[in-house]
Amino acid sequence: MAPQSTLDLVISLAKRRGFVFQAGEIYGGSRSAWDYGPLGTELKENIKREWWQNFVRGREDMVGLDSSIILPKAVWEASGHVATFTDPLVECTNCHKRHRQDHLMEAFEAKKKRPATGMEEIVCPDCGTRGEWTEPQLFSGLMKTYLGPVDNESGLHYMRPETAQGIFVNFNNVLTVSRKKPPFGIGQIGKSFRNEITPGNFIFRTREFEQMEIEFFTAPTEADEWFKRWVEDCWNWFIDLGINPENMRRFDVPEDERAHYSAGTIDFEYRFGFSGNEWGELMGVANRTDYDLSSHSKASGTDLAFFDQTSGERYTPFVIEPSFGLTRSMMAFLVDAYTEDEAPNAKGGVDKRTVLKLDPRLAPVKAAVLPLSRNEDLSPKAKDLAAQLRKQWNVDYDDAGAIGRRYRRQDEIGTPFCITVDFDTLEDQAVTIRERDTMTQERVSLDQVTAYLAARLVGGQK
Amino acid sequence: MAPQSTLDLVISLAKRRGFVFQAGEIYGGSRSAWDYGPLGTELKENIKREWWQNFVRGREDMVGLDSSIILPKAVWEASGHVATFTDPLVECTNCHKRHRQDHLMEAFEAKKKRPATGMEEIVCPDCGTRGEWTEPQLFSGLMKTYLGPVDNESGLHYMRPETAQGIFVNFNNVLTVSRKKPPFGIGQIGKSFRNEITPGNFIFRTREFEQMEIEFFTAPTEADEWFKRWVEDCWNWFIDLGINPENMRRFDVPEDERAHYSAGTIDFEYRFGFSGNEWGELMGVANRTDYDLSSHSKASGTDLAFFDQTSGERYTPFVIEPSFGLTRSMMAFLVDAYTEDEAPNAKGGVDKRTVLKLDPRLAPVKAAVLPLSRNEDLSPKAKDLAAQLRKQWNVDYDDAGAIGRRYRRQDEIGTPFCITVDFDTLEDQAVTIRERDTMTQERVSLDQVTAYLAARLVGGQK
Repeated sequence: MAPQSTLDLVISLAKRRGFVFQAGEIYGGSRSAWDYGPLGTELKENIKREWWQNFVRGREDMVGLDSSIILPKAVWEASGHVATFTDPLVECTNCHKRHRQDHLMEAFEAKKKRPATGMEEIVCPDCGTRGEWTEPQLFSGLMKTYLGPVDNESGLHYMRPETAQGIFVNFNNVLTVSRKKPPFGIGQIGKSFRNEITPGNFIFRTREFEQMEIEFFTAPTEADEWFKRWVEDCWNWFIDLGINPENMRRFDVPEDERAHYSAGTIDFEYRFGFSGNEWGELMGVANRTDYDLSSHSKASGTDLAFFDQTSGERYTPFVIEPSFGLTRSMMAFLVDAYTEDEAPNAKGGVDKRTVLKLDPRLAPVKAAVLPLSRNEDLSPKAKDLAAQLRKQWNVDYDDAGAIGRRYRRQDEIGTPFCITVDFDTLEDQAVTIRERDTMTQERVSLDQVTAYLAARLVGGQK
Repeated sequence: MAPQSTLDLVISLAKRRGFVFQAGEIYGGSRSAWDYGPLGTELKENIKREWWQNFVRGREDMVGLDSSIILPKAVWEASGHVATFTDPLVECTNCHKRHRQDHLMEAFEAKKKRPATGMEEIVCPDCGTRGEWTEPQLFSGLMKTYLGPVDNESGLHYMRPETAQGIFVNFNNVLTVSRKKPPFGIGQIGKSFRNEITPGNFIFRTREFEQMEIEFFTAPTEADEWFKRWVEDCWNWFIDLGINPENMRRFDVPEDERAHYSAGTIDFEYRFGFSGNEWGELMGVANRTDYDLSSHSKASGTDLAFFDQTSGERYTPFVIEPSFGLTRSMMAFLVDAYTEDEAPNAKGGVDKRTVLKLDPRLAPVKAAVLPLSRNEDLSPKAKDLAAQLRKQWNVDYDDAGAIGRRYRRQDEIGTPFCITVDFDTLEDQAVTIRERDTMTQERVSLDQVTAYLAARLVGGQK
């Protein structure tokens, strides 16, 4: 059996411990979307909270927004999505399965390490037939639904393929109520939907996914400067939360590969470890120029230009857009944190252990309370401590099995601290706190545990 | 002009200060959904965080989940939604607008204070024609979309009309990974979609909305006891966060009005102040019996019964479901907090003021830093303080206009503390902190401001 890649090990761990489940699994499952179990939900919430604090609440020049998923057709016509949000689709004439032509060619190039020169050499991933493809047809990535009692044109709405447009159409509203002026930005976290033909690579490409997006509005003359600053700020956010810089790289997207409105795009790629090409897109920062506000001004008849009372100038703001995939970020944090090392065992030797070295701010469980054994004196003491800590943090309580095995269970989900309540606790009113990465232990007085954790759950320790 | 109701005043304030915008407003807007502006987004996040901490993280017997919005048709067939999630619809034969028959009759009864005996007496709200209605037709409240390249039966999926089903289909998965056993529950916050024919009453009834739901699994013999406990816990949550108990009431839904699977439902109604019937449904707690897990066991072929190793018993758990509307909760907190009183003005008299007496935990802005004037000494001092506080809280900075007017602006969005940086600050390194409800002021040393706020932003002070 071939050795498993780190990515395979992470996916296996994520499924086994309930970070992620296949959506609708008992009905045969779906590759369109994934469900997030107890640990995945906490991890995802922690990523969102850190992002919101760092990029929205923590900044004077940012405010938040939460716009709706379903927007009228007019919005998507103005944004260009109805006309251009399409992908070339080819069908295998043998098995009649459809694929995105560009994805087939990318996969070929990654595998063969040479350019694909035509569809003749491409093998169908479903049935193995070579080069039997229909001509490509354009296929819309927008998902539609119908509002109101009849499924007709008048009720046709689209589900957003990005959160960005909800920000643009609210630009004037936010400007007025927030009393901000450019340079300032609007941040939003939420679900988006794309009718991907070939979802895959675990939670990397799904039809339902979450984004964290910023649209930052600047004077046209300042757009380049802000573009650079945002690239740095985004890079630093990942590094600060523990991503190893050797696993992340910038890709300056060449003009002919950029969206038509973009005057510059830098993608961050993360070394996910996919077979073939191990790098995958994690996020992107784009200079969208005045394309968005101009398009919506024109289509809606509402003037979205900005009049600067200080300079007396009137301009349509340029937009710098840092766009993060939330679920891709989660996948990167998991892959980066995955470590195998050795831990001492009860027999004086060492065992292999799996440990998720997640930044404490991201760890889904902050501490586990472990009574040494199930006992009428220890259990109430341990339960009291767990209840006290739960007022602030997500805390596990585990009294099943040998202590070493309980440590292993916490290590592999990234719990920064294990707190053992033992028989000495009944005498000295203290507990033993073990740190995940170093496995060092400290004796801490019961009334100091909250303060001990509070001081250490703030990150930057990896 | 008739005096405005409190509800009208709240809606007007919410729009003016950017809690809520009409979705797609620059394209003529939509009654289907609303967009949440900077303040609304923060308020909504704060409600979610309090709910999650109180009902999920803070409890030993609860875990969280985040399941997908789009689920295969099979799930909604098994849940009964495809067959029964329908409403009777009538069309005015004069203007051809459609309405839900039950809503028309409820509105009639609320207005006339007597039962509606037939459609002959009901006037069309669109064109005013009396009693010219088609026979009612059943209409599905499920919104559909198509996944994959062709819009046909095989790609037909439904968007969830409730988050609950995503919990039921993951019951076995969660049971395994969380090592919990009944009595325990799964909580989830997320968007749901219903094709309402007559959305309305501001954010009360919309096609896209957010829910906070708990499915609590118990032994059948313990279901009644847990039902009562959950009704109490939910009631207390609203009261603890400041809802006046006189504005909330319980409605024990009679058997003939309950869903067919429910062995008991208690709705909480809040006095929103709608014209006609001022009360509206805020949330509900239902005893769903073993209906859900039995239905999904049967339809999927996966056994969702639970084997209790302690008692040796095997049973299909009963489900107690506390189901909260997030946006309805937000609306209730806003209406309940809305107050008009008097504040002293600069001339020694009093002015009317509007103040949102939101619990500090819910307030969208926790503190506002107000330099007495724009000045090269005061401004940097004030900006430093704001930057320091932003590390923990959402904080405003406002240096425009008279101090009294700035207080009014903060009062009407519910900011608990206004911090004035004045010329004395340059000497004594202290600031004046004004409390929103009492308007009392205290002089606090600059290095104590964080601790001062931290001690007072924990609620329970209303």
